This record gives sequence, structure tokens and C-alpha cells, in this order.
Amino acid sequence: MEVDFELEACYKISRALQSVRKLKPVVHHITNYVTANDCANITLAIGASPVMADDICEVRDMVSHANSLVINLGTLDSRTVESMIEAGKRANELNIPVILDPVGAGATPYRTKIAREIMNEIKIAVVRGNLSEIKALYGIDIQTKGVDSSENISMDEDVYSNIKSFARDFANTFHTVVAITGKIDIITDGRRVKLIKNGHEILSRITGTGCMSTSLIGSYVGAENDDFYGALAGVATMGIAGEIGYNRLDKDEGTGSLKVKILDAIYHLSEEDILKWGKIYEV
Amino acid sequence: MEVDFELEACYKISRALQSVRKLKPVVHHITNYVTANDCANITLAIGASPVMADDICEVRDMVSHANSLVINLGTLDSRTVESMIEAGKRANELNIPVILDPVGAGATPYRTKIAREIMNEIKIAVVRGNLSEIKALYGIDIQTKGVDSSENISMDEDVYSNIKSFARDFANTFHTVVAITGKIDIITDGRRVKLIKNGHEILSRITGTGCMSTSLIGSYVGAENDDFYGALAGVATMGIAGEIGYNRLDKDEGTGSLKVKILDAIYHLSEEDILKWGKIYEV
Amino acid sequence: MEVDFELEACYKISRALQSVRKLKPVVHHITNYVTANDCANITLAIGASPVMADDICEVRDMVSHANSLVINLGTLDSRTVESMIEAGKRANELNIPVILDPVGAGATPYRTKIAREIMNEIKIAVVRGNLSEIKALYGIDIQTKGVDSSENISMDEDVYSNIKSFARDFANTFHTVVAITGKIDIITDGRRVKLIKNGHEILSRITGTGCMSTSLIGSYVGAENDDFYGALAGVATMGIAGEIGYNRLDKDEGTGSLKVKILDAIYHLSEEDILKWGKIYEV
Repeated sequence: MEVDFELEACYKISRALQSVRKLKPVVHHITNYVTANDCANITLAIGASPVMADDICEVRDMVSHANSLVINLGTLDSRTVESMIEAGKRANELNIPVILDPVGAGATPYRTKIAREIMNEIKIAVVRGNLSEIKALYGIDIQTKGVDSSENISMDEDVYSNIKSFARDFANTFHTVVAITGKIDIITDGRRVKLIKNGHEILSRITGTGCMSTSLIGSYVGAENDDFYGALAGVATMGIAGEIGYNRLDKDEGTGSLKVKILDAIYHLSEEDILKWGKIYEV
Repeated sequence: MEVDFELEACYKISRALQSVRKLKPVVHHITNYVTANDCANITLAIGASPVMADDICEVRDMVSHANSLVINLGTLDSRTVESMIEAGKRANELNIPVILDPVGAGATPYRTKIAREIMNEIKIAVVRGNLSEIKALYGIDIQTKGVDSSENISMDEDVYSNIKSFARDFANTFHTVVAITGKIDIITDGRRVKLIKNGHEILSRITGTGCMSTSLIGSYVGAENDDFYGALAGVATMGIAGEIGYNRLDKDEGTGSLKVKILDAIYHLSEEDILKWGKIYEV
Repeated sequence: MEVDFELEACYKISRALQSVRKLKPVVHHITNYVTANDCANITLAIGASPVMADDICEVRDMVSHANSLVINLGTLDSRTVESMIEAGKRANELNIPVILDPVGAGATPYRTKIAREIMNEIKIAVVRGNLSEIKALYGIDIQTKGVDSSENISMDEDVYSNIKSFARDFANTFHTVVAITGKIDIITDGRRVKLIKNGHEILSRITGTGCMSTSLIGSYVGAENDDFYGALAGVATMGIAGEIGYNRLDKDEGTGSLKVKILDAIYHLSEEDILKWGKIYEV
């Protein structure tokens, strides 16, 4: 049964990929200066069109032309918080989906406060973060160490069952799709819950793999307007490209080459790749 | 006759390249945070010396040591608009050429307004943009989709003839050199008009290829003080490096590898490369 | 005797590298938008955990969880100067080492003033810069051209002897370790003076190699709390990785590929690499 679902999900992702390439959705990003270049390049590689603009004087106008809005808190800056809120509200008015990447939520009180403020003031289509960030957004006290994933999703039966029901609660509380990424990724809209086992540990040694997943979600959701499958497709695409890239590393190559090969893999991503590499499970 | 001009233009570009490598001009950038790293690296690869500084407290001093100033509106920010104007005015006083990249002009009213304000308050040596951006600067209503080129220069006789006369008008109105880049690039100072047919469609799938062209123009103009040939050389260099890079891609390589190979090609660019690859036409 | 010291230093660096990989220190950066991505990636490649956060509302909280703080003045911005000072003071209170990269000190009066202000208000564990920057910090009038190294350390006996005593004076005056990097690097705590002859001229053609060295110092110092050996290890690691990367370039490859290969070399750096490539001298 898993296999059947997996196949169906992979076909859906393939069709979503074709939509992205055909429609070239504009993905407006209000994002951080550490990974903005990578986010723009991965958005272009998948076939969408990124635009990065964060000044309060233009974000409402810019988002009006966009097919989705990605809000990423990476280098959170009080100058752009207002821009995030204004752009998000305008996107909501126009039914443009908003994707939130609450980078480092939980790491400082300010970051947690702003992330929650955004969740409260804007209708968010998809939130993608690691378990710590998503817990912090929900109001659960956590210990984060910087902005990196400090907890991974274990496959231990009890732990996993807890996380699954937490993710569902989160999605239902905020009326959003949530993607909790880590060793295993959980995507849920509160009703359906899917797992992705793609990716590789080495991806955590490249900055911005999380941000790039979020940009991919923005690309898919901008093209297809299916938040649940958009989130699934974005996270799966990043994981699959990570595995393809990793498998093409020569013995002297490391994280520098891997980032390049991930972009290459996404640029060339085919239906065959998705069917061959996709590890998506229904639970 | 075209061939003769082409050869002459390629020789001129070769000599300009030698000047850049010999004089190592300092190119002061006030630019965006998405492509700043790529702009710095391409400036270094060609042999010039980039400096990125945008605070109002230091831009007048910084530009005084520079050989050219590149103003790029990529992630336009009201904090740095004043810095752009002040640096530009100081550059004008000192006869340091100013190159403008009006990224996304036309995409929002704010962006268009600031771009025109800069054109009006500062004497600009070279403007480089896609057709939409240049039209927006001229006051022509356009529909842009994000910051990407939404119109390409067609070789259809009538369309081309219109664009050529538009480019000339623009150059004459603003007393500047204008480089309209796209599938075919037009460079004019209002009198002379040249075409470049280098480059490859895939370059539009890498963020910042436009910004990087502008940085190359800044490098050439900083070394040679010939605005028209500086613009021609900058745009041609980017296109040639793009083609060389593209030709070196293995079948699994895409836009990630291409960016790396473009920098490599510029680092090693030789007179032979320019003569072999340059496709420059007089019209 | 040199050989013995070299061997001992290389062993110490190897052990420090193992500490970084084991302890995964969090390196809080307040840095520039040109090289932030490279700094994050090199910090991850060596095995540490970068966090970039610069808003005044959160830097005191963020630095409290960190093992070291890197302050880099690359794109100096009056918005973040206060953040740098506040984060630095909090780090001092908590005995978290602070590493300063005074990018472009001397290039403008503002930059020099802020760099000195930071030196005066914060206890700095390690300063890393080129000779011009370090001289500017000391109050010596210099001529810089942009942010690039404009003076290199010559091995001419007299010049070298002057620089060595200048470096010692600097270290003693500010009670800090200073790393003056260039063709030859000098590291001193005012008492001990060491030289590193690793690296390659081509590294100056990649933006951010200085910034990346500073991030590596932050990684080592965050893991081992030995400021002198941390500075030595950071600078040596960058130079060794630069040489390994350079040696792996094919004839068509240039600075684009080199940056990728440097990250790869650091990711895979082994004790054997350090022993094979390290050129560290006691004087």
C-alpha cells in the first residue's frame, strides 16, 4: 500500500514540476542575506521566477504581481518585519499563498515573538521548519543551539507518534500545512500526514538547504495552488536533488561541490528521477 | 563589412581587458544582497578590485578612491537610496564614471520613481538593463513580471528598427550610453549603435547575470574611460564567458556548474577567446 | 628547529580540528552581506555551527548561546554598529571570545573610527586583517585602495623585522592576539610570534578569503579557548585548503572552481593534510 501511495505521490510531484516549468510562477521573497542567492538560484533552477524585494515602499505592489510569497526570518531585521506583515496581508487579500520559514524561532525571544506575530496576523499556506522551530511557534519551550536543527525526527514508535500528533495539532490550530523537516520529514494539513525519507545527513553541512526547500515550496505552490502537495513536492525535490548530488560526488568533493550539484540536479530533474529516488510514505 | 567591424571591436575589447588587468581599477558598488558575492567575484575574476560599501557615513569617501561607481537597485532599500545619490554626486564631481543597473524598474512605482530620480540627479555614464527596465526609465508604461526580462529583442525587421531608434532616443535624451540586454544586446551612445549576439538562453536561469554584466562594465569603464566601448566590452565579455561555460558543461551539469564555469572563463579570458567567440555587429 | 616547531604546530592544529568537529561550536557572526554565505559554509565545512543575526533586538540573546562571536565590518552599516557593540559587551561578560575582522579599516575615516571604537569598547580575543587594516587600527596613516590588501609582508629582513615588532606592539597594546595576513602571515600574542607561509596568490582573486579565515578562527577559538593557537589554526587551515584546492584545478578552471574546491578541502581536511601542507615557522 505504501508503494502505491509512493508511486501516486511521485506522479503528482512530476506533474507539479511540469506546471512550474510551464507557468514560471513569480515567487516574491522577503528573505535573509545569507542564503538569498541560493534561494534565487534554486527557484530559477526549478523553472520559477524569483524576485527579492523587502522595502516597505514597494512590497505591497511587488507581491501583487507574484504567484506566491516566501517570508524567511533568517537574518531577521526590524526594518523588514513591517514589510513582511504588509506584504503578507496584501497577499492574503489577493489570495496569493504565503509560505513561512521561521528560521531560528526559539533561538531568541525576539525571533520567537516575531514568528508568532506573523502566524497570527497573516494566513499562512505552508510553514516549513525543523522540529525546534515549529515547536517554538506553537509555544513549546525548546532549547535551540543557533539556527540549526537540534532535534531530529526519530523513527522510534513512541517519539514518532508524538511528533505526528503534534504536527497535526499545529496544522489544525493554525489552519495551515506544516512541513517539519529533518532526518525524516513530516508533511500534514491536519488531516493527511505524509513522510519523506529523502535527503542525506550531509545536507545539514550546507547553509540554506532549509531555506532552499522553502523556496521550492513557494515555486510549487505558486504554480499549482495545492498547498499540501506543494509542500510535499518542495521538500521531496530538495531531498531527491540532495541524494542525486551526493551520489555524484567524487572522493575529494565535499559540501562546496555538493551545493553546485544540487542546483544542477534540480535544473535537470526529470519524472524518472522523481520515480527512481522518491521515498514518500503515507501513514 | 560586418566582419571587419567585428574584428576591430574584438581587438578593442582585448586591449580593454589588458587595461583592466594592468590597472586593477577599484569598482565601488552600491548593490543588492542577492548577487553582491557574484558581482565581487566577477570583478575580481576580470582583474579589477571591487569594494562594496553603502552607508551614508562613508560612501562619499569610498567613491573618491574608486575608478568607477556601480549603482544597482536589486534589493532597493530606502536606507541606501540617499547613499546612492550622494555617492553618485561625489563621483560626478570627481569625474568618476557612474554605471546604473535599474533592476526591476517598472516592476513597482517606487522602483521606477527611484530609478528615474537617480537618472535625473546624477550624470550616468552607462545604463544597463533589459528592455522593460529601460522603457520604464524612459517613462513608457510596461508590464514586468518580477525582475526578469519580460521582453526580448527580436530580430524581426520592424521590431528591431523600433528598438534601435528607442535606444538612440534614450541615449540622446539622457546623454548616456545605454546597453539593452536580452537575446540580442544593443549598445548605443545615441550616435553609434552596436549589436552583440553572444550569450545563451540558459544565462537567464542564473540569478545575477545582468548584475554581473554591469560589474564588468564598471571594470572596463574604470580602466579605460571609454563609456561606449566599456559597455560593449562588459556585455560582450559576459556573453562570451557564458558561451564558453555552457560549452564546457557535461550532460549532468546545469546552472550550478555554469555559474562556476563562467567565473573560470572570465578568469582565464584571452584575446583568442574574444576573437573566437565575439559576435559583435555594426548596424 | 623550525621543523620541530612546525611539526608540533601541525599536531596542535590537528587536535584543534578534532575539537571543532566534536564540539561543533556555535559561531555567532555579525557580518557583511557580500561574503555571509561563504562564511556560513566554511564554518559548516570545518564542523562548527554558524548563526548570522544582527538585529539589536536579539544579538545579546543570540550571543549568549554561542561559543564565539565574529564581528566583520565588510559592509559596515550604522544600523548594526550598535548591535556589534552590544553583542561584544555581552560576549565579554560571559567570557565568550570575540574575533574582529576590521575589513577596510583605513579606507574611509568612518570605517577606521568604528573599527577603533570596537577595539576600545570590547575586549577582542583575536583581530585578523591585512597589514593596512591593522595599521589603520593602530592609528598609523595608510593609503588603502578599496578593501584589498595593499601592502604585503615582504621577507626582506628589515621590513620583516619592522612588521614583527609592530605586530607585537599591537598585540601588547590591545591585549589581543593579532593575525596579519598576506603573502606571509604573522600571528602573535605579543610574546610568541609565528609565521605561516601557506596559501597562494590566487586567493586574493576570490572575495571573502579573509572573511572566511576569520570565520575559521571563530570556529577554532570557539572549540578550544586558546586564542593564539585558534588564530594560527584558522589562518593555516585557510592557506592549506587554498593550496590543496589550487593543486586540484584543471587547466580551464579558475577562481569559480577554486572557491568550491576550498570548501571541499576543508570538509575533508585530515591530519595528514595538515602535516603534509602546513608551513608554520617559529621566529
